[in-house]
Amino acid sequence: MASVTAVPSSANAPSLKGSGDDVSTSKGMEDSIHSFKVADLVIELSQTHKAKPDLTNLVFGTVFSDHMLTIEWTNAGGWQKPHIKPFGNLSLHPASSAMHYGVQLFEGMKAYRGADDKVRLFRPMLNMNRMAKSAERACLPAFDRAELVECIRRLVQVDLEWVPQSDSASLYIRPTFLGTERSLGVKKPSHALLYVILSPVGSFFSTGAKPVSLWADSKYIRAWRGGTGDCKMGGNYGASIYAQHEAVHYGCQQVLWLYGDDHQITEVGTMNMFLFWNNEKGEEELATPPLDGLILPGITRQSILELTRKWGEFKVCERYLTMADLRCALKEGRVKEMFGSGTACVVSPVGRILYQGENLHIPCQEDFPQLASRLMKELTDIQYGRTQSDWSVLV
Amino acid sequence: MASVTAVPSSANAPSLKGSGDDVSTSKGMEDSIHSFKVADLVIELSQTHKAKPDLTNLVFGTVFSDHMLTIEWTNAGGWQKPHIKPFGNLSLHPASSAMHYGVQLFEGMKAYRGADDKVRLFRPMLNMNRMAKSAERACLPAFDRAELVECIRRLVQVDLEWVPQSDSASLYIRPTFLGTERSLGVKKPSHALLYVILSPVGSFFSTGAKPVSLWADSKYIRAWRGGTGDCKMGGNYGASIYAQHEAVHYGCQQVLWLYGDDHQITEVGTMNMFLFWNNEKGEEELATPPLDGLILPGITRQSILELTRKWGEFKVCERYLTMADLRCALKEGRVKEMFGSGTACVVSPVGRILYQGENLHIPCQEDFPQLASRLMKELTDIQYGRTQSDWSVLV
Repeated sequence: MASVTAVPSSANAPSLKGSGDDVSTSKGMEDSIHSFKVADLVIELSQTHKAKPDLTNLVFGTVFSDHMLTIEWTNAGGWQKPHIKPFGNLSLHPASSAMHYGVQLFEGMKAYRGADDKVRLFRPMLNMNRMAKSAERACLPAFDRAELVECIRRLVQVDLEWVPQSDSASLYIRPTFLGTERSLGVKKPSHALLYVILSPVGSFFSTGAKPVSLWADSKYIRAWRGGTGDCKMGGNYGASIYAQHEAVHYGCQQVLWLYGDDHQITEVGTMNMFLFWNNEKGEEELATPPLDGLILPGITRQSILELTRKWGEFKVCERYLTMADLRCALKEGRVKEMFGSGTACVVSPVGRILYQGENLHIPCQEDFPQLASRLMKELTDIQYGRTQSDWSVLV
Repeated sequence: MASVTAVPSSANAPSLKGSGDDVSTSKGMEDSIHSFKVADLVIELSQTHKAKPDLTNLVFGTVFSDHMLTIEWTNAGGWQKPHIKPFGNLSLHPASSAMHYGVQLFEGMKAYRGADDKVRLFRPMLNMNRMAKSAERACLPAFDRAELVECIRRLVQVDLEWVPQSDSASLYIRPTFLGTERSLGVKKPSHALLYVILSPVGSFFSTGAKPVSLWADSKYIRAWRGGTGDCKMGGNYGASIYAQHEAVHYGCQQVLWLYGDDHQITEVGTMNMFLFWNNEKGEEELATPPLDGLILPGITRQSILELTRKWGEFKVCERYLTMADLRCALKEGRVKEMFGSGTACVVSPVGRILYQGENLHIPCQEDFPQLASRLMKELTDIQYGRTQSDWSVLV
């Protein structure tokens, strides 16, 4: 497990400045000053190599690649050198604030291998911008987002063989950021650990792209105004597992999260939600709830909005949608499709919603409705390099 | 770091059945079947002993004793043997659900050394009951609460010298329970780790029992209906640090958490909240918000309610209190005292609240008002064994 080398930043790295999601579009210009740098990267290669898994029936996120990226921070010493090293357990102080007070956040992104054998990331700066926002909310230190993308690119380069040779599989990338304050006061951590692990994943739809069934009930609320629903902080997710079990108890696969007395539709499981319908005014409209602080600002969500607005074929709207709106539209035959969006699945059609004891059936021609199919194709074409796009960043 | 011994459960352990907080008062009678057992405890004593700290100016929760308790659980193998072993870092899989999805919870309790040199716990079964409830909400496995108290007693026995010889200091006990699922799916964990660490703490009021100042604003909400506000899950706390910083920015020490359009008063920092006043009907009343799912069911809160109801000297009420109620009462001179309650401080008087740009001054004769002082004395008399009570459990 030895072979420690300092490796300079690759000179031919594609500049993120040229991508569609320029770092300068987000606020923290100052964070470059005190951040870790890819130029300081220390790489310790693993002497052992795990066998690659058969992706056909692999459960999501259960197998990890040979290496990981770790970067430590202390209030006294600032950011330390980033390290790529053999994948292994973390040694954490038992008082770490990540484990007591949920001072933690994560991101989810993927590396895709195209038919041209090139490996691409999809809009990584959007993940970095969201991660920086989560870090601010969690009182974790700022970092240079472009430097982190570069470190992640280097990690994927080291484990390049782990990016599946398949246009229905990918290498899932999980940046994680923990408060490792070694004391029990509830406070801004004086120690932190940012790390990135990699997990090869098969198609989300390997077992068949069946539309999902949802349990819609206001008994559990995912997020609320003044909370952390728009950040990828761990507490949003752990609190959801109990509701997910109740959904399964009622014969549904996932939770449709509602909010407020009027039962606004917010998210689906861990996905953003889209409704394609003829709206109250009879306009053909793709609608998704607005980013009002309750909703996770999904990268796939944003990409779907941008793509469909570019098409200009129907109205695209960020707006509130209530269960009453949906029920009325179903009754009047105005609903065309409903689907969730996320990094794991791209899009996931909804087939049925159990709400107030009634099964609401959502139209789903041939299991995978037309708009969802088209979005799936356009997005994966970009991700796997079949379509040129400045949303792709070469590894 | 060797010396591994299996130690049978101490025969003369005081039965929890005799305490005021009988285990049978809470629901899960079934959880004894599959739980770990103190009889299986394996003790590995540390060969080194850290120096005890000077408690005078010690920051809360920064120093830990020589040993810790760890108990592992897997879905396949159930609960493993409990271990008392040298305090040290935990080795955790980097995909552990505790670190990604906030599948984590904790408890806070204390061991007190009396003038009689006996060491006591204060109502430990109440902590265990709350911990079991948090575990259910976090989808972590059930355990036998009486067995865990016994394991904790044994841990404190092993580190008995760490219980300070002082009636203004104590040994803080931090049970922690983590999901250690080694995969990235958001689901009920198949691995878990329960551990307990000990930290000697000085008087909360060593720097003088100054009344705290609070920032009351509805910008940040601690908890909401359908969430986890009544459980001691980590996500409740990490999300609060940002608001705490804003409170400090406005020249206040802690956050007074509001809820709803009518700005209900819910909690103070990490404490429950009490208002001692003449209510709208002119009745002398001790009031605290009800346990409606938003409020943490504090052990000190419950003890204060039980004590004052036993006194029978004034009305004791769990009721909603809004900022308008408080402002009106202050204007009319009906407020006697306001204080937070918690394990760390017992009671902590409130001196000032910044609300909608206005400083509300709460009466605070001699810094520590009369009812708060009396409660502080009665509770610490029990905790340190100066008053006999079935709330005390001998270690």
